[in-house]
Amino acid sequence: MKQTLLLATLLSLSLSVIAQPKSTSQPLNQSTLDAIVQKHIRSYYGELYDFVSLPSNAYVKEHVQPNLDWLRNAFSRRGFSVEFLPTKGHPVVFAERKADTAPAGPLKTLLFYMHFDGQPVEPSAWQQESPYKPVLKRKNASGQWEAMDWQALQTGYDPEWRIYARAVSDDKGPIAMMLAALDMMQKEKIGQRYHLKILLDSEEEMGAPNLPAAVQQYRDKLAADFLMIMDGPRHLSNRPTLSYGCRGITELTLTTYGPRVSQHSGHYGNYAPNPALRMAQLLSSMKDEDGRVTIPGYYDGIVIDDNARKILAAVPDNEEAIRQKVGFAQPDKVGRNYQEALQYPSLNIRGLVSANVGEKSNTIVPDKAVAEIDIRTVPESDSQRLIDLVLNHIRSQGYHILDREPTDEERQKHPKLISVKSVIAMLPVRTEFGIYPDRWLSAAMTRAFGQEPVKIRIGGGSVPIAPFIRVLNIPSISVPMVNMDNNQHAANENLRLGNYVEGVKTWLAILTQPEVK
Amino acid sequence: MKQTLLLATLLSLSLSVIAQPKSTSQPLNQSTLDAIVQKHIRSYYGELYDFVSLPSNAYVKEHVQPNLDWLRNAFSRRGFSVEFLPTKGHPVVFAERKADTAPAGPLKTLLFYMHFDGQPVEPSAWQQESPYKPVLKRKNASGQWEAMDWQALQTGYDPEWRIYARAVSDDKGPIAMMLAALDMMQKEKIGQRYHLKILLDSEEEMGAPNLPAAVQQYRDKLAADFLMIMDGPRHLSNRPTLSYGCRGITELTLTTYGPRVSQHSGHYGNYAPNPALRMAQLLSSMKDEDGRVTIPGYYDGIVIDDNARKILAAVPDNEEAIRQKVGFAQPDKVGRNYQEALQYPSLNIRGLVSANVGEKSNTIVPDKAVAEIDIRTVPESDSQRLIDLVLNHIRSQGYHILDREPTDEERQKHPKLISVKSVIAMLPVRTEFGIYPDRWLSAAMTRAFGQEPVKIRIGGGSVPIAPFIRVLNIPSISVPMVNMDNNQHAANENLRLGNYVEGVKTWLAILTQPEVK
Repeated sequence: MKQTLLLATLLSLSLSVIAQPKSTSQPLNQSTLDAIVQKHIRSYYGELYDFVSLPSNAYVKEHVQPNLDWLRNAFSRRGFSVEFLPTKGHPVVFAERKADTAPAGPLKTLLFYMHFDGQPVEPSAWQQESPYKPVLKRKNASGQWEAMDWQALQTGYDPEWRIYARAVSDDKGPIAMMLAALDMMQKEKIGQRYHLKILLDSEEEMGAPNLPAAVQQYRDKLAADFLMIMDGPRHLSNRPTLSYGCRGITELTLTTYGPRVSQHSGHYGNYAPNPALRMAQLLSSMKDEDGRVTIPGYYDGIVIDDNARKILAAVPDNEEAIRQKVGFAQPDKVGRNYQEALQYPSLNIRGLVSANVGEKSNTIVPDKAVAEIDIRTVPESDSQRLIDLVLNHIRSQGYHILDREPTDEERQKHPKLISVKSVIAMLPVRTEFGIYPDRWLSAAMTRAFGQEPVKIRIGGGSVPIAPFIRVLNIPSISVPMVNMDNNQHAANENLRLGNYVEGVKTWLAILTQPEVK
Repeated sequence: MKQTLLLATLLSLSLSVIAQPKSTSQPLNQSTLDAIVQKHIRSYYGELYDFVSLPSNAYVKEHVQPNLDWLRNAFSRRGFSVEFLPTKGHPVVFAERKADTAPAGPLKTLLFYMHFDGQPVEPSAWQQESPYKPVLKRKNASGQWEAMDWQALQTGYDPEWRIYARAVSDDKGPIAMMLAALDMMQKEKIGQRYHLKILLDSEEEMGAPNLPAAVQQYRDKLAADFLMIMDGPRHLSNRPTLSYGCRGITELTLTTYGPRVSQHSGHYGNYAPNPALRMAQLLSSMKDEDGRVTIPGYYDGIVIDDNARKILAAVPDNEEAIRQKVGFAQPDKVGRNYQEALQYPSLNIRGLVSANVGEKSNTIVPDKAVAEIDIRTVPESDSQRLIDLVLNHIRSQGYHILDREPTDEERQKHPKLISVKSVIAMLPVRTEFGIYPDRWLSAAMTRAFGQEPVKIRIGGGSVPIAPFIRVLNIPSISVPMVNMDNNQHAANENLRLGNYVEGVKTWLAILTQPEVK
């Protein structure tokens, strides 16, 4: 409270153009936040420029140190203590700053995760001199992106302009937004009401292979009440978004067997069993016409209550537009809508190969057929349980299951032979709607943008940081801030200027959010 | 008849070791045939050696002329008029010789088809200096094939010895056998009772692309009462074999469609329809667990009468050995046995590909799935009718069928889209059991070998000369003479010495066979 009083006093002194909050007990309202950002934003384009000018490919060892040094300076200047925590790979950056006064309420320490490494680059595919030399662009009348003078940012502003550079959206942009927001708070004399801990990963685009172990090692240092992951794009509508989890991934490789080596289809067609037919029959026994898994128990445990269903239905997906963009007439009928579909584990044939087609095809009965399946798991569906259900189902279809190539004896003995390999590659994570950190963060977003954010209950994909979230074992919510069409992981990665500005506002709103009921 | 009298007289003069036929009205019996062959055979190994020493790859233009010249000499020396008939590719050889007297009975002119081109060679895979430098080999105590002095053929004989060279079995061996038999008849003063026409193909291993047109062009020249095809291996038992036809082949390529481009399986698993699943469901709707096609009408028209069934059952297949060799526990249940299975059209998935498996796999919903099917057809099942049955079946599964990639509009409109391409690649041929040429040829074989030959009602595979047989439109039966394990089309092609000798006897038996009832 004291903090807010001080702020109100300071605002009335320093922000002549900014309307004073109605009551000194109220946090900064939407228009005040906008005014603060607009007042200062031009001072921070340069820092973003410098940061993304540093090459950031984690596969190139030499790229790491300049980023570490840059981040140490940037956070130190803002009153953070900065450490480089050694891991089995590149070190990660840990920055910490105490609250200006003892924090009140259930949340005392906030932990933020971001990463400063970017995807590798293929410079020839970029429509600019270098992916590490940022370019400001605008769309011209014929719909082409044309370069502008960087200095145009000092004299004009259009939210549709874009900054093109590797890592500008994924994920250096959000770090730069935070740095800008911290500075603005300092300039506006807005006190820091939470202990802040910031973990900046150096290997996220490599799959964060060393992060879970590092988090285990540094768990005391990282102790916090709430984790926010500032990475990824907003919902396709580009409305402010919160994301509560992501699916895990479990992988199955199935191999059915025909003749020991491929046989002439004239001599053995109608006689030697065809492994591609066997595989087709097996796969089709697992799902119905509508894409629903028919293996009993597969969807057990998944309950979408009325509140969750309402929140899912509120996501402004344009399913007609998705169908047109992706190019199909009718979606699978696993959920009532796109968001609901993601609440269930999938069973997707990601690859299916038996012999060859096209120029390399032969008139043969193939020797084997291989299907790879990925199961996107949700928290309710234990990965091993799903694997066991699939194995039991395969067994119920008369198969003898191996985990390797069959021997000659096994080929003679079992009419239906299959080998199955399974890997639980990533686990799902999800934070439930309605817990205190959710209410608190939702309040911050609503205050900043005048309406509830889009809430993604679970993202369809799997992310390498899920294991790290599980290790920390505290509530976590992602706050994606960049535009969906940022060409993440591809050439011509970009950040929409409006998203950069709204991202700074998002940070301000979060860092100034008082307790909620 | 006159001919036989003359023969008997001559035999009594020249063949002191050969028993005279019991009656002068009888054709040469088995032991007489054996005696003639054994008496003369050593004079003909040299000719076989010379012939297979000529490189024979039809894809190498320079290989053709030396073979043409050699064949002109060989047949001219034996009283044949020889022509090179131009085709759109290499010329074919046509050799003709009139009967010594006017032929009696239903068969007056016999046409024989053989080919003198061989498969391409990969010399490094051959266990000898050159595929075009024949080597005589025997199996040593440790089961290895070891080279012998070629001259060993002049002093010894073991039917298990083998001659290794490209084309020695496929198909120069049978030509050399005929040349030897013709000479033996001349030496033994056995008159020629039939008009003989011999067509020697130069492009069979290329798929005989120009043969049907050439046969159409030269049909008057080729006019005959009966065609015998002297090519291919005997039944696996190596018993003397006759083959009455071969299956045709019709090819279908099916492509099912998912998203226009592959999509992230996290974002779209459970939502975008999976084309590999669709394909699996479609393929499995076509056949049952036992490999029988379930599309109504697919096997219509196929009747195996008691006589045919008896002949099929008499083929000495060792199905247990086939299963062990090929490596499976249970055959498809299309026929009651292997031979019966071949009497029905097949529907074989020869290739099935959707995206990738293994190192190249991605976590995606694939954009499409492609299945290639080959249908081995039999004379009762019109190829186009089978294609139409499959198309109707696909339609009954709710598919909209195209013959090309779908447009965006079609993707929006039809939940189940497929493109289907079909090619009637080769037609089936079959000569019915029991017709006069069959009775006549069977009699010759039985006389030579003391028992009925193995009769293959229809061979499972398809051969490029089937169109030519159809163009000629006369009864045809194949007389395969070489050993099944001759490594045809592969490295280390060989001819078992016993098969060479019995092949010469087969020719003698056919060329001396009188009329039958």
